Formats: sequence, C-alpha cells, structure tokens
Amino acid sequence: MAKLDLVLEELVTANRILAREEVVDSFGHVSVRHPDRPDRFLLSRARAPDCIEVEDIMEFTLEGESIDARDRKPYLERFIHGACYEARPDVQAVVHNHSPSVIPFGVTDQKLKPLLHMCASIGHDVPTWDSQTKFGDTTLLVENMEMGRDLAASLGRGRTALMRGHGAVVVAPNLRHAVFISVYLEVAAKLQMQAMPMGNVKYLTNGEVEKIINRTGPYTIDRAWENWCRRAGRPITKSA
Amino acid sequence: MAKLDLVLEELVTANRILAREEVVDSFGHVSVRHPDRPDRFLLSRARAPDCIEVEDIMEFTLEGESIDARDRKPYLERFIHGACYEARPDVQAVVHNHSPSVIPFGVTDQKLKPLLHMCASIGHDVPTWDSQTKFGDTTLLVENMEMGRDLAASLGRGRTALMRGHGAVVVAPNLRHAVFISVYLEVAAKLQMQAMPMGNVKYLTNGEVEKIINRTGPYTIDRAWENWCRRAGRPITKSA
Amino acid sequence: MAKLDLVLEELVTANRILAREEVVDSFGHVSVRHPDRPDRFLLSRARAPDCIEVEDIMEFTLEGESIDARDRKPYLERFIHGACYEARPDVQAVVHNHSPSVIPFGVTDQKLKPLLHMCASIGHDVPTWDSQTKFGDTTLLVENMEMGRDLAASLGRGRTALMRGHGAVVVAPNLRHAVFISVYLEVAAKLQMQAMPMGNVKYLTNGEVEKIINRTGPYTIDRAWENWCRRAGRPITKSA
Amino acid sequence: MAKLDLVLEELVTANRILAREEVVDSFGHVSVRHPDRPDRFLLSRARAPDCIEVEDIMEFTLEGESIDARDRKPYLERFIHGACYEARPDVQAVVHNHSPSVIPFGVTDQKLKPLLHMCASIGHDVPTWDSQTKFGDTTLLVENMEMGRDLAASLGRGRTALMRGHGAVVVAPNLRHAVFISVYLEVAAKLQMQAMPMGNVKYLTNGEVEKIINRTGPYTIDRAWENWCRRAGRPITKSA
Repeated sequence: MAKLDLVLEELVTANRILAREEVVDSFGHVSVRHPDRPDRFLLSRARAPDCIEVEDIMEFTLEGESIDARDRKPYLERFIHGACYEARPDVQAVVHNHSPSVIPFGVTDQKLKPLLHMCASIGHDVPTWDSQTKFGDTTLLVENMEMGRDLAASLGRGRTALMRGHGAVVVAPNLRHAVFISVYLEVAAKLQMQAMPMGNVKYLTNGEVEKIINRTGPYTIDRAWENWCRRAGRPITKSA
Repeated sequence: MAKLDLVLEELVTANRILAREEVVDSFGHVSVRHPDRPDRFLLSRARAPDCIEVEDIMEFTLEGESIDARDRKPYLERFIHGACYEARPDVQAVVHNHSPSVIPFGVTDQKLKPLLHMCASIGHDVPTWDSQTKFGDTTLLVENMEMGRDLAASLGRGRTALMRGHGAVVVAPNLRHAVFISVYLEVAAKLQMQAMPMGNVKYLTNGEVEKIINRTGPYTIDRAWENWCRRAGRPITKSA
Repeated sequence: MAKLDLVLEELVTANRILAREEVVDSFGHVSVRHPDRPDRFLLSRARAPDCIEVEDIMEFTLEGESIDARDRKPYLERFIHGACYEARPDVQAVVHNHSPSVIPFGVTDQKLKPLLHMCASIGHDVPTWDSQTKFGDTTLLVENMEMGRDLAASLGRGRTALMRGHGAVVVAPNLRHAVFISVYLEVAAKLQMQAMPMGNVKYLTNGEVEKIINRTGPYTIDRAWENWCRRAGRPITKSA
Repeated sequence: MAKLDLVLEELVTANRILAREEVVDSFGHVSVRHPDRPDRFLLSRARAPDCIEVEDIMEFTLEGESIDARDRKPYLERFIHGACYEARPDVQAVVHNHSPSVIPFGVTDQKLKPLLHMCASIGHDVPTWDSQTKFGDTTLLVENMEMGRDLAASLGRGRTALMRGHGAVVVAPNLRHAVFISVYLEVAAKLQMQAMPMGNVKYLTNGEVEKIINRTGPYTIDRAWENWCRRAGRPITKSA
C-alpha cells in the first residue's frame, strides 16, 4: 500500500477507536498532517467518528481551506487542527474531543494532573483555554483561524489543553500517540475525580512524568493499538 | 414513502435510539404531532421503547383519546404528550423519560444548568414540576389532562422540565431534535453531578446558551442521528 | 406446556434477566414456590445465574432438603429461600443478590428509601439484617435454617431487606414481580447515592409509596418483562 | 491433554477473563508457576491480555530470564512475577494490573479494606508499595529484580498489594484463585469509594475475614470461573 493510503486507513482506524473507547461520541474529530506535504492536513468530512470511511477523508491547507471538497461538507472546527499544525512543526496528529470526564476540569478551577503512570503523557498539568476570555459570548465553537490560533497558543510546548465548557485538544508526534494520549487523558480525569474526595492525592512527580514521557514509544503504544483495533473491528496495518 | 409512513418509521427509530442511548429503560415514551392533522399525535401502544414496531403506533386526539385503538392498550401517561401539543403549537415532538442522571436534580433543590456546549439546548436552567404541589399524594403518574396541563405549563416557553420523583419531559420543533435534547439532558445532568463537588462551576452564560440554541440545526443533529441509527441497528431515512 | 414446565422456563428466564441487568454477577439466586405444593420450592443447583438451564432446577422442602438431587450440588444458602416461604405464605418468589449499589447501604447507617416512583415497590424504607448481631463472626453466609429464619423475620411484612456486608433479599407475590423489585432496588440505591450529596432529598411520601404499590401489577411489570426477555435472549412465555 | 497444555490453555483463559471483566485494559499481565519446574514461570510475550494465544506464552527463570524467547519480546515488568514466586513458595499464580478502582487507594492514605463477603480474599487490609520510597523518580515500572523483590516483600504473607500511581499485584495458590481475587479486589475498591461518603463504614471483622478465606475454594471459585469463561468466549476446561 502506498504511504498515503496507509495513512488514510490508519486515520479511519483512529476515528473508530476513539469512538469505541468512548473518547468521542457523535462529535469530536482526529486529523493527521499530510505525509508528503507538511502544509496540509487530512481530516474527515463532517461525520460522526464511528461512521467514517476512507472516502470521507478530505485534504485541507493549514488555514482550513479544503483542497478536494467535491460535495463533502467539512467540520466547522477544522481550524483547531490547522492552527495546531501551524504553531507546532513537531505535531503530526491532532485530536479534538468532548471526552466526558475531562469536562468537569474545564469548568472548575481544579487542575487536571496525572496520578497514574499510564497518564504521564498528558503532561505535568493540563492548561485550560476559555473562549470567553478573548472572544466573549460565542457558540464556544472554534470557527475561524483567530480562535484556533488562540487555542493552539494555550498548548505551549505541551500535548494537551482543556477547552472550557467544550472539551479538549491533544497533539502528538504521530497518530497512534495522539489516540493513546486521548484515551489516557480520559482515564486520568476519571481517576482524579475519584481520588480527590479520598484525601491528599500523591500525583506523579515532575521527575516521574519526564522519565515516563521519554520512555513512551511504540513498545507501549503498539500494544494498546493492537488491542484497540481488535475491539473496534479494524485490521491492524503496519504503522503508517 | 408517503409522508406519514416516513414519520412512523422515524418514530420507531426514535424509540430505539432512546433505548440504545439509555435515556429510557423499559419505560418512557416519545411522540410526534400528526404531520397532516395538528390536532392529533402519534404514540406507541404501551410497550417498552426498544420493542416498538410500526404496528404499535396509535393515533390520539390532544385530549388523549385514541382514534384507532383496536386491541392496543395505550400508555396511561399519554396526557403528557397531548397537553404539551395543546399548550405549545410550536412543539412537534415530545419525549417523556426517567433518564437516570436527571432524577437526583428533580428531588433536590439543585438546579440543572448546562455547562457543556452540547447541552445548551436544555435551556438556561431546567424547571421542576412536582405533582405533590397541586395534586397531593398520587402515583406520580400523569393520568389525566388536568395533570398534563399543569405539567405542560411548567415548561413555559422552554424545552425541558423535570418531574419530581419521576423523570423529565422534553419538547422540540421536530422528532430528531427532541431525541437530541433528551440525550444531552442526560449528559448535562451527569456532568453537573461530577463537576459540583470540584468547586465553583462555570456554567454557560446566557449569551452562550442563546447563541448555541440559534445555531443548533440539521448540520449538528443529523450527524448524531446517523450515528445513533447505526448504533440502534436502524436504517437512516430521509428526515421526515 | 404444563403449568410446572412454564414455571421452570420462567425461572430460567428470571435467572438470565437478573444476570443481564447486573443484579447478580456469578453469585446470587432466585427461587419460586412449587406451583402444586406450597411446602416446596424450586431453585437451581449451585451455578452462576447466567449459565442456568431447566435441567439445573432442583426441588426443595422449606427446610432446604433436596427432593431430587441426583448428582446436583445445591446452593449453600438455599435456607434464605426456605425460611422466607415458611414465614410468609403470601410469598411466591424470592431473590437473593449482591446487587452492587445496595451494598454500601448495608454497611453504613444510611437508610435506603425510594425517591423515584419506579422504586416504590421496595417499600417505605429497607431494613438491614446483620448476621453479626446474633451469630457473631461467621462467613456471613446463611447456611442453616436458624440464620434463614432470623433473616426472614427482618423482612416483617415488607418485600426487601439488606444483609450487612453481603447483599439483599427480595420477596414477592410472583416471580416477575420479584425480578422487577430486584432491578429497581438496585436503581433506587444508585439514585440515592447520587442524590444525597446534592442536598436535602425529597423521598416519596408514605402516601405515594402506598398508592404506587397498589397500582403496580401486570400492566407495568409485563412491559418490563418483555423488554428484559429480549435483552436476555429469552422467549417471552405466557406468565406462569 | 497433558498437564502443561492444560496450564497453557488456562493461562490464556485467565488473560481473556481479566480483560473481559475489565481488571486489565491493554496492559497488565498474569502468570503461573511452571507445573513441573517450581523455579520457572509461564507468562505471555508483551501483548494486550485480550489478544493472547497459547503461542504467546513464554517460559522464564525466577530472575526473569527467558528460556525460549525466539522472536518474542517479553514484558518489561516480568520481574514482578519472578520476585513473587521467589519470595513465596506457596504462590502458584500472579496477576499484575491497573484495575481502575484500586488506583485512587494507591495515591491517597485511605486504606483499602473488605466490606463485602465476596471481597474477604483480598485480606484484612491491603498494603501499598511506593517505588518512590526506595528508588526515587523512576518510570514507576518494576524493571529489575531489585524492584521486584522490594515489591514482593511488601506483600508479607498476604495476597494483595497496591502500587502507588501504578496498580496492584495479586498472588494466589492457583491461577483461578488469582483471577478471583483480582476481580473482587476491583469490586472491593469500587464499593468502598461509594460507601465512605455515606458515613461510618462497617468493614468485615478480622474473624469474618479469616472464616471466609478458609472457606473460599473450588465450590465458590469454579462457579465464577464457568461464568467468566462463557462471558469471555472460552471453553471450560478441567481445572489445571
């Protein structure tokens, strides 16, 4: 299979996994930077992640303009993706979701921080972006590049940011990694909500977080990927 | 397919989706105003939502009298539906459910308010109707038009009301929209229960709620509808 | 089908439903009084409820002695059932379970009380039996008639009792009703755990509970039964 | 089937059950001591538990050196298993998992203690091992025998220990028993989290715990095993 075809198949799989693992419901999306053109990214037309086929994947400029729309309608919030790729050349994949357990952290002052080793990839703590701060009353949707860039800036050099009253964005050096962080961001949030009422929580130390992030690679991620593919009923292809 | 047939198929689908998404269990029901006769509505015979077939759908006057009962037994609480259609000409579809997460809000003084953009459709806050106030000790069931009208009045111009110790009622401009609000009413309640113990909650502002409600249409709802049909094992028909 | 055969099929179905609805896990059991001999009851051999077939059903005296054991091993706790039938001629079916949400109520002083109309069948409030009180340190299992009778006495004229550190017992005028109460006992416990942290809870009044109990019959229970049979993959037989 | 073949089949089944019952996700592992060589143990290659086949099972010395690696990569944390077998000749099976409800107990000072009779097998209370204490900032992974031995020592004569920010280890006199304790360790943690906010919790007394542990054998465990095999889609073989 050609490189691009592998990427397209893997992007469909990523959508299905995120749905099966309940990181996205009928909404949320995942993109990947074009393997041959770093100034383009690939993202499905506006469709629920668990319904997506290869034919749904569209190509966009980093400003969110579609190259090959035909009769396909894009996601309104494609600017989230474009702005992240623009701001961060190291980023090769982006997930936007409304993962249920992260929502409460976005609407309270409680910081989301990893307490389980599997969750270290979310970073030492997770910043929250509030569209209200700069844009006032909106639909909360990131519907232009100005909002996208403001959100992307909140990531700093990190890999996760919460969006107040809306969800989260996750960026990563490849597609499987983005899915991995997204799944364990949800786990992290759920665990922290359970642990907090039980007393003083021992979060991972900064040193532990660094050491785990440096160690997290294909040995870890591909083990989960095989399992998630099986659960989502998708073939396991060679890593794109 | 004739208009009425489309509506009947879509009503069966709505029942199945509400069951699959756990908004109803063996109880709860959903109706639609008759497409040709605004003084009539369509509602299944007394049966669990996930078991319903087209042959189960009955026609009622707004007072809840059946037109075509044959040997089919109606839901006792059909008056909920009739009273909502009577009070609100803008309403084309009604859901009544015992959605699990909304129950605690109906039995405490805690107001249910949207904190996630997907939940703005429930309104700025959700009123609670208590059958006890006007009718004293009852089975809590809405078993006549007097109770139905009292409940319908509690909706005001809104789209949702809780029923103390019982559940909720949702009204909407079309069937898909009613299902959409019902699903995200459950999500809203679950999220708020998780967020409240974590500190001061930033709910959506009134301006945000208005903007999102004005924006929520087929672009959003049909994306969920396709996904829910697939999950419920139902064909996706053209919107009735 | 002969009366006894209908009862045996329905008892298998009751086991499968309780498993499917997560009221029992690998443990817990349900029995029915023998339709022709009120001094006997029918209960499976010691097997997980979701695995049970008609061939597993054994016949017991009210003292828990098996009539037709062959090579089948009985449940150690069959005395729970016998003692309830002995103490309460009105009881035709008994469920014993470790339903997850009821456990916390059995180990704290928090009274379980219905707040949702569907749960009124559990009674105004649910007493707790503690094996420790009379029998000291045991395995907590009801392994003889003395313990069974002590537990049965705790029911009074009611239909439910919790067992400290162990689970619950439910008695009812027929098998479907026993399953119905068991399912909504779990629902009641889960809802109350969610409502309590939210402020003062408005439980059902005694008058409401009485009115609902008097109304709850086949019209309500058979609607759920059809749905539960479908979910458990069991045929819907005429009520035994 | 030869003894070893039975053990290998049962080890695959144990992996699948732990996945189906959500005690492990894509990570976590279970081993068994070699039936003919007490200085060896059997453990899958590095793979998600729900994907494991007989061909994945490798043989290791107690120091974690593989005997028959071929092209198979071992789990990094095999030292957990080796160190437990080395320290405890009575131990025949070991589970390591990240069971979701136990994590909060490992990161707070709240002791995990059994309150339900089914959970007595976890012991009177469950100690917590913190890699930080002796090894400082690490990836939290048990990646050599020194860490493995330190963890194994924390078990004392017991059957369970939590690992701070990481998960739990369970040891048992046979494979089915190890799975049984692992499942009910998760249940215990979930129940205790629900019970604690409701007031003073009556845990099992030490006498009750002892009596239940002495009673828990094949009569109890095989009933669950049959059910879990069915749920995991695995044949029920004679106990290895």
